[in-house]
Amino acid sequence: MPIYKAPVDEALFLLNDVFHIDRYGNLPGFADASPDVIEAVLREAGKYSEQVIAPLNRIGDTEGCTRASDGSVTTPAGFKDAYKQLVDGGWIGISVPEEFGGQGLPATMTAIVNEYLCSANMAFAMYPGLTQGAIAALLAHAAPELKQKYLPKMVTGEWTGTMNLTEPHCGTDLGLLRAKAVKQADGSYKISGTKIFISAGEHDLAHNIIHLVLARIEGAPTGTKGISLFVVPKFMVGDDGTPGARNGVSCGSLEEKMGIHGNATCVMNYDGAVGWLVGEENRGLPAMFTMMNEARLGVGIQGLAQSEVAYQNAARYAKERLQGRAISGVKFPDKAADPIIVHPDVRRMLMTMRAFNEAARALVIWTALQGDIAHRSEDAKQRQTADDAMGLLTPVVKGVLTDTGFANTVMAQQVFGGHGYIAEHGMEQFVRDARIAQIYEGANGIQALDLVGRKLGKDGGRALMAFLNEVGVYIKEQGADEKMKPLVTPLGVALGHLQQASMWFMQNAMAKPDNAGAGATDYMHMFGLVALGYMWCRIAAAAQTKLPDANGAAAHYNAKLVTARFFMERMLPETAAHLARIQSGAASMMELPAEAF
Amino acid sequence: MPIYKAPVDEALFLLNDVFHIDRYGNLPGFADASPDVIEAVLREAGKYSEQVIAPLNRIGDTEGCTRASDGSVTTPAGFKDAYKQLVDGGWIGISVPEEFGGQGLPATMTAIVNEYLCSANMAFAMYPGLTQGAIAALLAHAAPELKQKYLPKMVTGEWTGTMNLTEPHCGTDLGLLRAKAVKQADGSYKISGTKIFISAGEHDLAHNIIHLVLARIEGAPTGTKGISLFVVPKFMVGDDGTPGARNGVSCGSLEEKMGIHGNATCVMNYDGAVGWLVGEENRGLPAMFTMMNEARLGVGIQGLAQSEVAYQNAARYAKERLQGRAISGVKFPDKAADPIIVHPDVRRMLMTMRAFNEAARALVIWTALQGDIAHRSEDAKQRQTADDAMGLLTPVVKGVLTDTGFANTVMAQQVFGGHGYIAEHGMEQFVRDARIAQIYEGANGIQALDLVGRKLGKDGGRALMAFLNEVGVYIKEQGADEKMKPLVTPLGVALGHLQQASMWFMQNAMAKPDNAGAGATDYMHMFGLVALGYMWCRIAAAAQTKLPDANGAAAHYNAKLVTARFFMERMLPETAAHLARIQSGAASMMELPAEAF
Repeated sequence: MPIYKAPVDEALFLLNDVFHIDRYGNLPGFADASPDVIEAVLREAGKYSEQVIAPLNRIGDTEGCTRASDGSVTTPAGFKDAYKQLVDGGWIGISVPEEFGGQGLPATMTAIVNEYLCSANMAFAMYPGLTQGAIAALLAHAAPELKQKYLPKMVTGEWTGTMNLTEPHCGTDLGLLRAKAVKQADGSYKISGTKIFISAGEHDLAHNIIHLVLARIEGAPTGTKGISLFVVPKFMVGDDGTPGARNGVSCGSLEEKMGIHGNATCVMNYDGAVGWLVGEENRGLPAMFTMMNEARLGVGIQGLAQSEVAYQNAARYAKERLQGRAISGVKFPDKAADPIIVHPDVRRMLMTMRAFNEAARALVIWTALQGDIAHRSEDAKQRQTADDAMGLLTPVVKGVLTDTGFANTVMAQQVFGGHGYIAEHGMEQFVRDARIAQIYEGANGIQALDLVGRKLGKDGGRALMAFLNEVGVYIKEQGADEKMKPLVTPLGVALGHLQQASMWFMQNAMAKPDNAGAGATDYMHMFGLVALGYMWCRIAAAAQTKLPDANGAAAHYNAKLVTARFFMERMLPETAAHLARIQSGAASMMELPAEAF
Repeated sequence: MPIYKAPVDEALFLLNDVFHIDRYGNLPGFADASPDVIEAVLREAGKYSEQVIAPLNRIGDTEGCTRASDGSVTTPAGFKDAYKQLVDGGWIGISVPEEFGGQGLPATMTAIVNEYLCSANMAFAMYPGLTQGAIAALLAHAAPELKQKYLPKMVTGEWTGTMNLTEPHCGTDLGLLRAKAVKQADGSYKISGTKIFISAGEHDLAHNIIHLVLARIEGAPTGTKGISLFVVPKFMVGDDGTPGARNGVSCGSLEEKMGIHGNATCVMNYDGAVGWLVGEENRGLPAMFTMMNEARLGVGIQGLAQSEVAYQNAARYAKERLQGRAISGVKFPDKAADPIIVHPDVRRMLMTMRAFNEAARALVIWTALQGDIAHRSEDAKQRQTADDAMGLLTPVVKGVLTDTGFANTVMAQQVFGGHGYIAEHGMEQFVRDARIAQIYEGANGIQALDLVGRKLGKDGGRALMAFLNEVGVYIKEQGADEKMKPLVTPLGVALGHLQQASMWFMQNAMAKPDNAGAGATDYMHMFGLVALGYMWCRIAAAAQTKLPDANGAAAHYNAKLVTARFFMERMLPETAAHLARIQSGAASMMELPAEAF
């Protein structure tokens, strides 16, 4: 049975010592997030994750969801009770404004809590996760009466949310979508069409399900400019807020899939279902993107979360499993063999996962903080800078954290040898569950294109310049510190590669856009390495500051310094290979005709 | 439903034009393998794979194997009939000496046929695959009467074979094994103990199952020097060769695992089962290694095979799925969208898989040819050189082809977007099936250690020197050819990295063996890249030779040249990152105490 321990102390170190959250006290909601409150919230979330939903992870996988002939869907044993506890704890709305029943705490707190939920039970965590995404879209775009009608119960979790984009013939290319909306005399719309891959589309956890649905209003333009966003409740909601008659939306079938079996992935049939417009007509895509940015950060967190729990289990196994003797000499002569953690290749895997997890967590928190500043600051310039950073980092967090997170679940499974391939240890489930995060909310190739094709050039490259400048200045400053020099020097090399790659795109992708597409994935991963390297420097600097008075915690801070060094030596050098690939351009990639494949 | 087309023409090109198999006519069995015979055998094997077992791949996955309360195991629907056709076709023994009922053809032919079988249905192909491994061990080590008794029916496939090494507490470290053998008055032994992860341990395909079992004879030394190899039939075999009474070996349970559900992975209980010694007492491990070398090449082939079939399906999907428009301008204005193969990032994935598959196939054939020379040449010097090469390349083929093969199944799945995560398209099965190949027959970390710790230094580094020399000479020769220069120049850089890494180990790993362990996996992958790059140069050179008279096939040979360039530009540069990691040594990897994890 897999273990899981929520890394609360890691988050506290990052919030307090690395990012100094106390300096953001001027932002609404941050003053309420005193160190005590933060710690209490995170410990409680950790406990819930460890004790309530982690034990349900395996049963969720083996049992899965079942659909009855009437279209109702039953979640795995235990999910319903666990969900009730989630609602009772108020976990879904901790960052939602108080006027809608939330606690108004920083969204950064939600990001951290979601890591714990997703480590413990990713399939389960998707139910509240999708609700949070739907809440974000309604908050940003819905008319006041829609907000009042739907948000309070979604914020408590009594009702859950979904997002309905994909259709059988259209996923990435939403311009092709066919779901139809017909305006009614009362201002509502009748929605018809089929949506697929709808996570949490139907289930037995909540009293109502609030679907956000993309559809094309009769007569609207073709392509992406004719898409509108609608809210479609499973049960009609009366003016007093109580659910009434069933709406014309139902689950046609459940998908049989590789993992996240505990989450119901539905084909949803809309048959003249009543819906209400969210935002303006034909402006559905931008509205949905609000939700998707939130969701993309959330999916990046899933990548980290699966990597973390897989790492914890691999580390435990490596300390317990006796096999072979250390190449440097027997370590435990009284045992039949040494634990496999003595073997360098096992260490390599553990250190690789750990060096990723700690920096990735920092990157998530840093990005989430930018989101909080962008949404809450009174200072327009500060909002803009933070929004730039958030926009730039979101595809990196989504793409890199899920690609590397998945690779790490595979690595953790490898530590178990043959036992990792067997279901009972739970390692192969982490691999299967983590895999979806590279695909949904925009496949990672789309994230890379978003970064290179949209974010790099936006506003004259303002966001990129700011990032390059921030890291460059930091390297310069810290380079004067003898202890930091061995870390910032390799980071400087990697930053140089990122600058060269950015320059290469400017010079070679204008005339030949395929050159941008050809290098996009490499660029995203290179960007991720630089961002993670920057995080490691900031973590190491904080650890250096703490060390002199650390006493009993010295080993803890020292481990940060060793892991930072490992990252610089073993993981960061990959930027050179990314640069070489980017600079080779699109020629050999695009030369063959399609029929050659 | 996934497609599969056996790449017979690819193999013929490699055999005839790249490796000039006609030059090996002096080796026993090679003269019989005329171009006509080779082509007929491969086409027939391709047809069997495509038409008989590929259609059973998905049902094998969904149905799996079932064990009844009496310990008998039923394979998925259709397997029994398909296996009968395999036996009727004589496919298992095509490379076995004729005196035991085989056809005596080159083992290289078996390697190619096994690729097709494993692409079509890996779980199914494991049944004959394990039999081939057992045949190899008996051929090399068993006494004549044991050979006569068991081999003929194993060669036809009427009986299948297994290898029993792993026990619950010992996998990699066989020195810990506890299975016991007690010598009987008649010269036989009674074997007792529990073996786990026994592929094809029990099933309904064959009339008898011949287990090769490692056990410790009473009073034998502890550790690896006290292990002996036994043959233990499921049914006792009379002197006339007919199966008789049931032996004391049975399947205690089936493992529930991530993939290869169509193959029965058994816990095998030996309860005083009668067995006969294979080879000498206490020399079981070296004997088993004969089998494992064969098996490791076979597992490398599985990696290639899954990558190939996954690629074929991704390529088809990329040409059919309409989504978005080409960044370089609309390609199919009459369609609702362009096929996704127009997008550079999709091309990147397809080209990456293809550039691996073609070179990996060449490397398999080249390695298998070395095996044939090592086993069949009359010239002792030639045998030694070939044996050196085979020993050096085996861990590379196993480790690199399965790691990259798995990565490619993940990449192929990614091409499908959300549809890749759904079971019905079969892409996620390739991922789950391919995953085991990185683990069994020695986890890939063990392959890397075998390469660095055993093969590099063996006989004063003779095998490595020969390899470096061969590639170096080739680069020098071909560098004079203007058409080959753009390919051999980057190969020269990569070869330089491999030389530097080898030198670094010599200088840094003697005093501190952890430095070897810390760099082993990177070294193995770097070696693989150089070997694959060398294969690409040889393929390109052959394509250049064919091009002037190619006529209708010009596009085919041209595609080889483009793909070779892609490999050099996009995949080979990774050697620099491997070198940097190797040269960073073990310090940061090994510094933390175990309790820090």
